[in-house]
Amino acid sequence: KTHIDCLTSLQLVRLPGLIDIHVHLREPGATYKENFASGTAAALAGGFTLVCAMPNTNPPVIDKASLREVQQLARAGARCDYALFVSATSDNADSLPQMFRSVVGLKMYLNETYGPLLLDSITNWIKHFEHWPLSLPICVHAESQTTAAVILLASLYQRSIHICHVSREEEILVIRAAKEQGLPVTCEVCPHHLFMTVDDIEIIGVKKARVKPSLMTARDQKALWDNLDIIDCFATDHAPHTLEEKMSENSPPGFPGLETILPLLLTAVNEGRLTVDDIVKRLYHNPKRIFNLPDQPNTYIEVDLEEEWIIPEAMPFSKAKWTPFAGRSVKGQVRRVVLRGEVAFVDGQLLVPPGYGENILSQMLPDVERPHINLTPGSQQAMPSQKVVGSHSASGRTT
Amino acid sequence: KTHIDCLTSLQLVRLPGLIDIHVHLREPGATYKENFASGTAAALAGGFTLVCAMPNTNPPVIDKASLREVQQLARAGARCDYALFVSATSDNADSLPQMFRSVVGLKMYLNETYGPLLLDSITNWIKHFEHWPLSLPICVHAESQTTAAVILLASLYQRSIHICHVSREEEILVIRAAKEQGLPVTCEVCPHHLFMTVDDIEIIGVKKARVKPSLMTARDQKALWDNLDIIDCFATDHAPHTLEEKMSENSPPGFPGLETILPLLLTAVNEGRLTVDDIVKRLYHNPKRIFNLPDQPNTYIEVDLEEEWIIPEAMPFSKAKWTPFAGRSVKGQVRRVVLRGEVAFVDGQLLVPPGYGENILSQMLPDVERPHINLTPGSQQAMPSQKVVGSHSASGRTT
Ligand SMILES: [Zn+2]
Ligand SMILES: [Zn+2]
Ligand SMILES: [Zn+2]
Ligand SMILES: [Zn+2]
Ligand SMILES: [Zn+2]
Ligand SMILES: [Zn+2]
Ligand SMILES: [Zn+2]
Ligand SMILES: [Zn+2]
Repeated sequence: KTHIDCLTSLQLVRLPGLIDIHVHLREPGATYKENFASGTAAALAGGFTLVCAMPNTNPPVIDKASLREVQQLARAGARCDYALFVSATSDNADSLPQMFRSVVGLKMYLNETYGPLLLDSITNWIKHFEHWPLSLPICVHAESQTTAAVILLASLYQRSIHICHVSREEEILVIRAAKEQGLPVTCEVCPHHLFMTVDDIEIIGVKKARVKPSLMTARDQKALWDNLDIIDCFATDHAPHTLEEKMSENSPPGFPGLETILPLLLTAVNEGRLTVDDIVKRLYHNPKRIFNLPDQPNTYIEVDLEEEWIIPEAMPFSKAKWTPFAGRSVKGQVRRVVLRGEVAFVDGQLLVPPGYGENILSQMLPDVERPHINLTPGSQQAMPSQKVVGSHSASGRTT
Repeated sequence: KTHIDCLTSLQLVRLPGLIDIHVHLREPGATYKENFASGTAAALAGGFTLVCAMPNTNPPVIDKASLREVQQLARAGARCDYALFVSATSDNADSLPQMFRSVVGLKMYLNETYGPLLLDSITNWIKHFEHWPLSLPICVHAESQTTAAVILLASLYQRSIHICHVSREEEILVIRAAKEQGLPVTCEVCPHHLFMTVDDIEIIGVKKARVKPSLMTARDQKALWDNLDIIDCFATDHAPHTLEEKMSENSPPGFPGLETILPLLLTAVNEGRLTVDDIVKRLYHNPKRIFNLPDQPNTYIEVDLEEEWIIPEAMPFSKAKWTPFAGRSVKGQVRRVVLRGEVAFVDGQLLVPPGYGENILSQMLPDVERPHINLTPGSQQAMPSQKVVGSHSASGRTT
């Protein structure tokens, strides 16, 4: 694979294997939309070597039995490394902490979204804030006022909170004010909110454009870019549905995103709106720090900053077979992905089978029950003490 | 007026003139529902010598011109003393502080309610938190998650906040947690949430039962009683509509309440669920402290704790001419109301004319503009330093 034709103009950059802290891989329950094998193929093609899978599957991950099932499916299917979230329900606050060594964090759905896991009463939020270990993240789907409401709860229970897919001006302003007051809140932003607005709805069609949080105004989008300094992470919220489903009467909300986020971000780098370090901070260092993720040895990716291409109707690996970014001109492409010493992806070719991926938390849920763990507030630090590392040893330009 | 027949069993208690911090007097704009003359007559009959009028009139009180208009109507019509609220809108944050000596506080409508004053974006809340003087209250209609959201804002902007008509378990639990962490939040509860639940909807009818916040479950009601120790104020949220309106297709939300709250509370005293001091603390001392209200000299009421009666279809003074409490057996009655030395009400007779009431803040809005007042956070105390007085000099039993 020598590309003598373009080697002179080729600008390859080596980056750490990227981490997507927010993906929906649809297994079990809707494997025609995606499964561990296809979703982690899309991840590798997108430059990710580690994904954190959301628990709103069918059945959802809400107890030991459902977690064990997903652990087994992931172990068999995943091509890249992964970690699993567990979901809060109105009656599992007391039992969840027993699983805390096996999951990356607790997900709380605080607004109406895709799936049946809505926790609508603060009375139920409180139970989880009282029980969930302070050392592990709580991630929340919490839009508009709910962003502010859940940050108050985090403040009252003196623990950190991670706000998923921030999309509105009012949300990022509240998060900024909270950070300025020293509250331990972190947040992520999705590519479709950085690169699309309500104006894109007519381009891609009302049904296909359905997503939660929905596409927002240009003013909201500008607020995200203006407050980039306090956005801790980028995350795809990769939420695949088939094109047929998206075109149906009751179009489910969600976009695939794993295979397109990095080209979109690299295009912004080429336009001078971001730096490569801005990306690495938000797709590697901060995810690692916020979610206490271990190192992946001998793991890195190589990215071509110069490659210009147009996003096709569908990206190759996700089962979604459509993308809301179809037709966009982008500049930047993933060339090679090395995961634990193996070339997992190179120039469009996927080289690792299902099962190559590992559970980064490795500790599988034991079959024997451990004693009930009841961590009281104050017994642990609210935030991991590890600091953000300004630059990363694995990065560096190569040609 | 000697009642020799029942003097032996008569237990009269002298209390301070009560303060209702939350009434809607409908003038200007809907004087067929209520006006200053009728609403303050109902107040006196209910044992109140001071009412704080909400700004969602037509036109609403949102600027100097509208405030001046209501000041004039109130001066002409009010029989008891009063103070006026001004309402936040999306574009008056910068001009409102100029009126701060003439109003009792700022009202912010943060959920869909009666009237057009909804402030739905936190971006707009922030403007008011940045501008409104720290020494004056901000009162909020903020239900469910919005309660938590606005308490966060108060915390971030280091100022006090008053939560109107708390009605849900989740709300009172969040307020308790916030108070335990030392946040300067105060709250009020309405008689219809203390004494009614969803079970009353079939008794009084779906349309008549419409109110915001709506009638809640027995569990919510129990949470209010269980957390009475952190409920700072009782307030009627007196919101009169005519019976005809209430029975119409689009029944507007709201109950009259001024003439029935004290009998209902005194009945709870007779049942051993409250003490008279619990009432006086929440209808006099705390309102006075939270809203920085001046003394009313030579002002008190006399209450009969023994009088048993049944609430009629309509109470005499409000123009509403219906009450959701019709048919209830109560024990306790207002006998006499003395306001600034004059007997204003005695045994069902109203003795003061429209115009007898005074603006307790007295300082009418000047016609000449004062310089722009821009108080910065930190330049004043977040909470009035005055402490709650445990007992009150004006009280004491008489027979
Ligand atoms: Zn080439
Ligand atoms: Zn427990
Ligand atoms: Zn979500
Ligand atoms: Zn999601
Ligand atoms: Zn008598
Ligand atoms: Zn100003
Ligand atoms: Zn209200
Ligand atoms: Zn009201």
